[in-house]
Amino acid sequence: MPIYNAPTKDIQFVLHDLLRVSEQDIPGFDELDADFTGAVVTEAGKVATEVLHPLNMIGDTEGCVLENSVVRTPTGFKDAFAQMKEGGWTAMDCDPDYGGQGLPYVMHTAAQEPFVSANMAFNMYQGLTHGAYSAIYAHGSDAQKQTYLPKLTTCEWTGTMNLTEPHCGTDLGLMRTRAVPQDDGSYRISGQKIFISAGEHDMADNIIHLVLAKISGGPEGIKGVSLFIVPKFLVNDDGSLGARNGVSVGKIEEKMGIHGNATCVMNYDDATGYLLGEEHKGMRAMFTMMNEARLGVGLQGYAQAESAYQNAVAYAKDRLQGRAVTGAQNPDGPADPLIVHPDIRRNLMDQKSFVEGARALTYWGAYLIDRAHRNKDAEADGLISLMTPVIKGFLTDKGFEYATAAQQVYGGHGYIEEWGMSQYARDARIAMIYEGANGIQALDLVGRKLAQDGGKHVMAFFEMIKTFIKENEANEALKKDFLDPLKAASKDLQAAGMYFMQNGMKNPNNALSGSYDFMHMMGHVCLGLMWARMAKAAMEALDSGATDKEFYKTKIATGRYYMARQLPATGMHLARINTGAETVMALDAANF
Amino acid sequence: MPIYNAPTKDIQFVLHDLLRVSEQDIPGFDELDADFTGAVVTEAGKVATEVLHPLNMIGDTEGCVLENSVVRTPTGFKDAFAQMKEGGWTAMDCDPDYGGQGLPYVMHTAAQEPFVSANMAFNMYQGLTHGAYSAIYAHGSDAQKQTYLPKLTTCEWTGTMNLTEPHCGTDLGLMRTRAVPQDDGSYRISGQKIFISAGEHDMADNIIHLVLAKISGGPEGIKGVSLFIVPKFLVNDDGSLGARNGVSVGKIEEKMGIHGNATCVMNYDDATGYLLGEEHKGMRAMFTMMNEARLGVGLQGYAQAESAYQNAVAYAKDRLQGRAVTGAQNPDGPADPLIVHPDIRRNLMDQKSFVEGARALTYWGAYLIDRAHRNKDAEADGLISLMTPVIKGFLTDKGFEYATAAQQVYGGHGYIEEWGMSQYARDARIAMIYEGANGIQALDLVGRKLAQDGGKHVMAFFEMIKTFIKENEANEALKKDFLDPLKAASKDLQAAGMYFMQNGMKNPNNALSGSYDFMHMMGHVCLGLMWARMAKAAMEALDSGATDKEFYKTKIATGRYYMARQLPATGMHLARINTGAETVMALDAANF
Repeated sequence: MPIYNAPTKDIQFVLHDLLRVSEQDIPGFDELDADFTGAVVTEAGKVATEVLHPLNMIGDTEGCVLENSVVRTPTGFKDAFAQMKEGGWTAMDCDPDYGGQGLPYVMHTAAQEPFVSANMAFNMYQGLTHGAYSAIYAHGSDAQKQTYLPKLTTCEWTGTMNLTEPHCGTDLGLMRTRAVPQDDGSYRISGQKIFISAGEHDMADNIIHLVLAKISGGPEGIKGVSLFIVPKFLVNDDGSLGARNGVSVGKIEEKMGIHGNATCVMNYDDATGYLLGEEHKGMRAMFTMMNEARLGVGLQGYAQAESAYQNAVAYAKDRLQGRAVTGAQNPDGPADPLIVHPDIRRNLMDQKSFVEGARALTYWGAYLIDRAHRNKDAEADGLISLMTPVIKGFLTDKGFEYATAAQQVYGGHGYIEEWGMSQYARDARIAMIYEGANGIQALDLVGRKLAQDGGKHVMAFFEMIKTFIKENEANEALKKDFLDPLKAASKDLQAAGMYFMQNGMKNPNNALSGSYDFMHMMGHVCLGLMWARMAKAAMEALDSGATDKEFYKTKIATGRYYMARQLPATGMHLARINTGAETVMALDAANF
Repeated sequence: MPIYNAPTKDIQFVLHDLLRVSEQDIPGFDELDADFTGAVVTEAGKVATEVLHPLNMIGDTEGCVLENSVVRTPTGFKDAFAQMKEGGWTAMDCDPDYGGQGLPYVMHTAAQEPFVSANMAFNMYQGLTHGAYSAIYAHGSDAQKQTYLPKLTTCEWTGTMNLTEPHCGTDLGLMRTRAVPQDDGSYRISGQKIFISAGEHDMADNIIHLVLAKISGGPEGIKGVSLFIVPKFLVNDDGSLGARNGVSVGKIEEKMGIHGNATCVMNYDDATGYLLGEEHKGMRAMFTMMNEARLGVGLQGYAQAESAYQNAVAYAKDRLQGRAVTGAQNPDGPADPLIVHPDIRRNLMDQKSFVEGARALTYWGAYLIDRAHRNKDAEADGLISLMTPVIKGFLTDKGFEYATAAQQVYGGHGYIEEWGMSQYARDARIAMIYEGANGIQALDLVGRKLAQDGGKHVMAFFEMIKTFIKENEANEALKKDFLDPLKAASKDLQAAGMYFMQNGMKNPNNALSGSYDFMHMMGHVCLGLMWARMAKAAMEALDSGATDKEFYKTKIATGRYYMARQLPATGMHLARINTGAETVMALDAANF
């Protein structure tokens, strides 16, 4: 049975040593002192360890079951969901006007991490609801907000996002679901949607489906797509539940992982829907939530790797195999623990240095979202918009890679479901696909975000790195192990950007053939920046006489590993990018 | 439902254009003309496509079931196994003295590929049997050979390998299974073995277990391990089956993949066993088969990627999403097929250029095994011994990576079991673990094989590359796109070897911390060498007026992709290696 314990100290380190949240000039951040955030994260960690994690394997084994149009969630999910509601965990960053606690998004993110690590499939019921909340909050009429938000805040009702159809996922312009306007201002929605997470289940009184559809007679393609609220049960004027709406679950999918979450085919058959936001502006409404939603998926990526890592470490300390090449470390035992072996360490350090860097990047992203929303800071908004595909794409690719690496530490036992390591890899796999497959993230980054606002945001990102390096160059310890590698990696990234500018004009395929490499390269530079900053923060803590010296020294050592061993990947990505489209596009489709 | 078609032309290209098998001065190779190998591979492909592949998903879905100590294989397996026996597919490279066809191992390998691609779990029943055949063939007494080999050749009886115990996998010196000598020369075997593939099933009359155990009173640790033949049913002197032996299946494991193969816990309770080979020389007996067994696992890695690739290509041609950035390619349709998009191509070219390079490396390895065995060629033996951990470790890591990449082409559908892409990834995952986890392959390569016979074999490998480059430098087309990148990559690999020599002496951890990177680096150099040779062969074919010009041009273009886009990974691995053990070993175990 796998273990999970929330890495509270690491989370606190990011919030306070790195981001210094309570010192930030952002409304609501003054509340976020170390005692408060520590209490919240500790409590979230307790719920994660005691309530959610024990249900993780149960959810995987039992899965969700569809019987007579009703979806039964795995044993224990219902009770656990009730505890999440009661504990107020679903309402943390929601607006107090609708029953929320009004806390910053970065606090919500820090509290979510343990839930996601402990039970990703379970936490999706709440995560999707939060997405629906955000969409209605941003685009709903006052009446819609009054009707839906209080119930979504508490998760008495849950939410879904309905985008994909059997024949179209990424290219939503091909959508066939139709909305026919009615005299009373509502619409009749008909069509089929697939891959609807939490589309139907037994843990809420009502399910609020947000559905993309085309209003008859509207523009062709993506410009004719609108967003609708389609409740499972219609809501009466007094807020009570009325008639069952024309929406039903067609089947639930058998998936590689996240078995505890019901992934549904949803059939809309003249269902009553209410326009959310403006006609034909459905994509814009979806995009509003995109940074948050994608950051949440990036978090899933590293959070699964964190869980897998904790177990790999425990196994590597416990399992006796072979002897250290430099002499027995456990001479009285029959063999040394796995953790003495350099290649096991290499593997564990890869995982550890990634996960801690990824956490810093994600929380920094959440902080930028707060700064953008609460301070109406356009620069922060531009920066998080640039970072979003990197956070989503890089952290989920690497999250899966390292969940798989953790599985490898177990040898044969890693392949046996009973040990739980396969589940981390299988669950993590979806994060590379949904909320925009990672190839689309790379396209978004290189095709849109780099040039956005005249390239202002990527320039600001490079400037930020340059300034940080300049300001700290006198710090010898930081310079050699952190600033110099960061400078080299950042130079590689800029060279790639330059290649795109010079060669993408004559043939855009020269840029797009390197988009995936660029996303990974930028991910490494981001984590390099995070590690340089964390190392600086740790050095400062040691200088100012922090008592927990081992913790800070470990941070620095872990960062040194990342800079020495992971950052050199940028050179490889640059070399690939610099070969352009020629070899990528050389073959006729028939010759594949 | 996924597709599979044997890549007969690609296989023939490796056998004839690259390896020129029929021209080799090795007994039995003169038979291997293009007509013969083409007929064999075509027929194997037919069996793979028509018989084995349709059972692949069934095997995954149904799995094996243990009821009343009997293991039931999935629907259709028994009939398919009968067809494999009848077709003589199990006997191809076995000794004619025992009913085999006596064909070279390279022919066996080429015929096996389609079976493994089509249904890896199914083919393991035969694969393990072949391993048992080889062990008894190499180490058995004449009587043992007469008793067991004819039945193993035909797969009337199947075989297993029993190494792992619950507390020891890699470190077999910790083994607890005991063998007590009896007056009649047999032994009583008692103990528990785990992860026994094909340990029990319903497709053979008898199962011949090869079991590692310690003879009471023998030396401690690995030096006291002997190998035993333990048949499920004892065999009477007339060859008929006698009493049921004291071996039984304890349970079958629930695994991430290869569900169609029964992975058993085997309990030996005073079972009658017969010493195979010499007392206390059990490990040596196992090692005899290791090169072949590990090459077979390397083949599993790329063979799964091949299957997954074929499906990804079909999907990318069929699925319409978005428009090519350079202008619509399917203007009359609602959208262009996925394959127009550069990042989809990048992904498919990664897969294609890997799989074809991996096939060349594997068949070259099989040819070296033939040369070593049939010509008693010590150099070939040394070379394949060096290559074995690379073939096993690199090809299975990359095979899994690209099976996962193929899954990604499907977007959300890749995560749904019904589409079959998850199975390729889940099945491929085991190949990184069994037959020596890949970390152990890296240790074997750097800790043993590099220095074997005074470093003679790795020197020969570098010399071979140097000579090839020198001999072909006048070929301009080859030089720029193939020889120059190969030279650079080979230089990186040599620099890494140099680093190990200079720094491994003072601290072996400096070498072992880079072992995994070295294995990957060498894998890239091997595939680079294969591609350079294949490109040369393709150019020669074009020059000599081959009719299928598109095929050869595609080969060259695919090779150019590998050299341009994959080979630069060596620089990253070298950079990692050059940082030595310091950051890898920095943390106390307690600080993980």
